[in-house]
Amino acid sequence: MSSKLETMTRWLSDQEQRAWRGLMDLHAELWSAVARDLQANSGLSQGDYAILACLSEAPGRRQRVTELAQTIRWERSRLSHQLSRMEKRGLVVRTECPEDARGAFAEITPDGLTVITAAAPEHVASVRRHLFDALTPEQVEALAEISAAVLDGLRQSSSAGMNGST
Amino acid sequence: MSSKLETMTRWLSDQEQRAWRGLMDLHAELWSAVARDLQANSGLSQGDYAILACLSEAPGRRQRVTELAQTIRWERSRLSHQLSRMEKRGLVVRTECPEDARGAFAEITPDGLTVITAAAPEHVASVRRHLFDALTPEQVEALAEISAAVLDGLRQSSSAGMNGST
Repeated sequence: MSSKLETMTRWLSDQEQRAWRGLMDLHAELWSAVARDLQANSGLSQGDYAILACLSEAPGRRQRVTELAQTIRWERSRLSHQLSRMEKRGLVVRTECPEDARGAFAEITPDGLTVITAAAPEHVASVRRHLFDALTPEQVEALAEISAAVLDGLRQSSSAGMNGST
Repeated sequence: MSSKLETMTRWLSDQEQRAWRGLMDLHAELWSAVARDLQANSGLSQGDYAILACLSEAPGRRQRVTELAQTIRWERSRLSHQLSRMEKRGLVVRTECPEDARGAFAEITPDGLTVITAAAPEHVASVRRHLFDALTPEQVEALAEISAAVLDGLRQSSSAGMNGST
């Protein structure tokens, strides 16, 4: 790590500042607007929705809890608490496999499937209203490309074992 | 609210799906990569950094806790716990104003200022490495414009009292 980095810092340009702060604010406000709609229209949190959407699309409508945690990028303990609450509401069930070291499955119930199926159209309409209605088709394409480019870079540096302490 | 929305749902196109999932994944992975660097290089969380950066730029290097909560978009109770921890580490102090109903101030300490000043160059380098190095100047400009367009839309619908239950 350079101890002289201060002397060679390339501070963000105005445009980069706008892009960085914009991205952070965009995510925070978009996420909160979509979450508010989802709660009002379906009584679901974003966490509920993400989990139900994943499980509804999974083969056999179930997924290992460890894999589900990776997919939705939650810590295992947070997911475990969330699944307990969703189990009490009848949206999911967990099935343990004592003989299988890879751990328990989470499965969406028929009630859970009814709930996500009913919630999806309003949720899509909310994403469309808050995000896509503000953008031109060229901007939608640019956003998809920007996301892919940054994610490629992040995944390459992650697989190369870089951790920023260079 | 339309009860027949299912029959008229405009599902997301492939491109819109890529943009929406891309934006969510981009934010999650970028945030986590930048947070990991920040912790490794400076021992600060993203919350620490956001609060110290806000206070270091505020007039008199202090801000009302209620305003700080709005600026960094945290719930008041979460910010209060965070400030208690940062106070114990000597990074900030809180000053109460019993005669002023608008509430307490948070102020960055000289130690806090030293810490954020030392952390900033590595943090900027981390943002540059993970975000901007993957993008062309045109994409940086597009990202700033996309963010501004979506935020404009969100703020307009918020000030118009729309809540998604249309």
